[in-house]
Amino acid sequence: MLHIHLDTTTTAHKTLNRSNLNLSTFHEKHDTPATSPKEDISDKWREFHGSSDWQNLLDPLHPSLRREIVKYGEFAQATYDAFDFDPFSEYCGSCKYNRRKLFEKLGLTKNGYNVTKYVHAMSHIDLPQWLEKSHLVETWSKDSNWMGFVAVSDDQESRRIGRRDIVVSWRGTVAPSEWYDNMQRKLEPIGQGDARVEHGFLSIYTSKSCTTRYNKTSASEQVMAEIKKLVKFYENNGEQVSLTITGHSLGGALALINAYESAKNFPGLPISVVSFAAPRVGNIAFRDELYQMGVKTLRVTSKQDVVPRMPGFVLNESLQRFDDITGTLEWIYTHVGVELKLDVRSSPYLKKGLNLVGFHMLETYLHLVDGFHSSESGFRVEARRDVALVNKECDMLVDELRIPHSWYQSANKGLIQNHHGRWVKPVRDPEDVPSPTAVDSRAGGVLELEYV
Amino acid sequence: MLHIHLDTTTTAHKTLNRSNLNLSTFHEKHDTPATSPKEDISDKWREFHGSSDWQNLLDPLHPSLRREIVKYGEFAQATYDAFDFDPFSEYCGSCKYNRRKLFEKLGLTKNGYNVTKYVHAMSHIDLPQWLEKSHLVETWSKDSNWMGFVAVSDDQESRRIGRRDIVVSWRGTVAPSEWYDNMQRKLEPIGQGDARVEHGFLSIYTSKSCTTRYNKTSASEQVMAEIKKLVKFYENNGEQVSLTITGHSLGGALALINAYESAKNFPGLPISVVSFAAPRVGNIAFRDELYQMGVKTLRVTSKQDVVPRMPGFVLNESLQRFDDITGTLEWIYTHVGVELKLDVRSSPYLKKGLNLVGFHMLETYLHLVDGFHSSESGFRVEARRDVALVNKECDMLVDELRIPHSWYQSANKGLIQNHHGRWVKPVRDPEDVPSPTAVDSRAGGVLELEYV
Repeated sequence: MLHIHLDTTTTAHKTLNRSNLNLSTFHEKHDTPATSPKEDISDKWREFHGSSDWQNLLDPLHPSLRREIVKYGEFAQATYDAFDFDPFSEYCGSCKYNRRKLFEKLGLTKNGYNVTKYVHAMSHIDLPQWLEKSHLVETWSKDSNWMGFVAVSDDQESRRIGRRDIVVSWRGTVAPSEWYDNMQRKLEPIGQGDARVEHGFLSIYTSKSCTTRYNKTSASEQVMAEIKKLVKFYENNGEQVSLTITGHSLGGALALINAYESAKNFPGLPISVVSFAAPRVGNIAFRDELYQMGVKTLRVTSKQDVVPRMPGFVLNESLQRFDDITGTLEWIYTHVGVELKLDVRSSPYLKKGLNLVGFHMLETYLHLVDGFHSSESGFRVEARRDVALVNKECDMLVDELRIPHSWYQSANKGLIQNHHGRWVKPVRDPEDVPSPTAVDSRAGGVLELEYV
Repeated sequence: MLHIHLDTTTTAHKTLNRSNLNLSTFHEKHDTPATSPKEDISDKWREFHGSSDWQNLLDPLHPSLRREIVKYGEFAQATYDAFDFDPFSEYCGSCKYNRRKLFEKLGLTKNGYNVTKYVHAMSHIDLPQWLEKSHLVETWSKDSNWMGFVAVSDDQESRRIGRRDIVVSWRGTVAPSEWYDNMQRKLEPIGQGDARVEHGFLSIYTSKSCTTRYNKTSASEQVMAEIKKLVKFYENNGEQVSLTITGHSLGGALALINAYESAKNFPGLPISVVSFAAPRVGNIAFRDELYQMGVKTLRVTSKQDVVPRMPGFVLNESLQRFDDITGTLEWIYTHVGVELKLDVRSSPYLKKGLNLVGFHMLETYLHLVDGFHSSESGFRVEARRDVALVNKECDMLVDELRIPHSWYQSANKGLIQNHHGRWVKPVRDPEDVPSPTAVDSRAGGVLELEYV
């Protein structure tokens, strides 16, 4: 523990605030690596995984834990960055890349994990702005949405972090809006006791239909089967295994439900949740059962973001304000775990005006985690994560940085010029075309392209 | 004339309307050239250039004239496509490419012209939404905007069109809005007689200041000097020369003022204006002087676009409607020349709902010109221009075509990843960095990069 203590105090005085934001420093940073050197945490991994509820690690935040939080956050961000949102795409609602290419395409191979499985959920559920449907008649699937993935640490990363880490990353939704509160009205039982969780989340997690291509099994069944396979394989191999479940916003809610089910199915497996900007999802009995089963939850929130206060808040987007409409819901729906609370005002790079979407974006969170030293201090001078990422899908960076807002976009929205000079939608790379089965089980056993 | 007559009747029956829009035909078209074969018009060029006020060439529209109109329209479109609109760019308000690369970058080398000069105008003039200013302190110029270019037909094109054609293309503004009408209040004298034109246009055209880099001379002086140089050069070479001035929207207004001044300076030079969606610009005396000097104007308008009805209309953008506020202005400001009137409803590819911006966009006009056969008939089946271009900066194409709206955009708004993986603004290619002089006239005569 001495080592931990030393780590955090040495950086205590080097912080930035608005008044000392030096733009030339920002621009000089362009020529420095965007990540800090990795440290071996193999002898302390259980603490970083939450075995002691992250006691004495959060305020000030331990540098190695910060790195782990950002790592899981980047896995959650990947579910947005690779999602096909184009309603005119025949693959709308799928992942743009197959699982073997995902991390490479998003620059995440540095994290040392491999995706082993894609997860899909039914999209007929009435949750506007979360589940995308193509406007076209002929599509890869009329019923399903890509909801995330299961990944596992490679040998090198496993050595560094002291165990084989299985990650489940759940896609959330970008914009909090009025519909969210409308949905938050119905609790439904989960498990055998009194535990109850919000109906809409559970429905996404458990729905299936034999008439679909991608949801003959539910998201729950897909994930459980994959975890089971991986746990069995690595435990048979004599390895220590852990499970870490992550998600942003509504994806954080799914992460918690997923952790609950995992704890039921894999007693003894160290399970933790790292959620960002997640709303409350279940009742007190749900929380207590999670505690009893030893599930550890690190809930990253920000003072300015309203979603972690949901349900119980109505967000009026047209008026750009929110109101506390009911004190009752706050008692019915209960938060779980330990909170790491960020503050938009701590970063000299961020605009301070009300920006409900910007406050909620995962990239904003990751920036604030990167700059967080303690609740008492300003933004870390040593923060190395690329600040420009914050503006990928919103307008949060101060103008002086000259980073355009919402810059994450394809050239010409993906249209390309054919040999006649006409602008056309390209055909998707065959290996990225969704296909429900990796292996054709019929005669011949032809290997299909492994989208999932 | 017989040839002309034959050309137009052969296509009379092959037209499309909404009910027979066949999407598979549209998609089959992807495999056909986007341009029609060029025809030699060297023996009829004066008629196509307006010598007889385009009599008997407009309804039905002669195919060769259609091609010429589209050619000039593409030159006008180039002033939008290459303009740096980014307020965070240190080159905001300039052209993104130097004059030697412009047509190549925009796929316009097919038209057979070379840019000989860029034109800049002062940007301090109070015309919001037209003149762009960088938010930055250090910029290529605090005072000037790129306003267009002078180009000249190459040898091959000159042979085809029967003369050496000098083109001046003026940049306009994309969105018509309320400010436009506010501006249209003050007529100012031009020339020695009673001719008067709108103050704001004339101000852009004539402003200069010795303290600027790009406007030590006015746009007027820059263009006049270039035309003079080119006319002299080619006439000394024994060639027939013509001048064609084009522009869209407010650029069409500048084109007319530019034509007036050119006619004063180059008596005997065949001068015509091809304007798109241009408002009225001057009084009756201005029009009459243009007629007396032999300036020919082809004014391309559309039934649904309100800008050609300005001034005299107030556009209430928030209510998405326009009102005729004064009958008087209509008499004070007078249209010039011959009108080719298009109809959005003629194209089966276009949405029919009210879209004030979409109706006004130059690409919408070019699409309608391409599909125009006569005022009585539907859209030409043989139209070859790429329909997808219509949606470059608006949302006018019917959903069935699956072309995203406003798709003309750079990957990641021009940000690129440096070797550390950080997203940064790239340094502009040195040869595209604006530089006011092509040749350093001081000792040594070092050749500078030729942006202008």
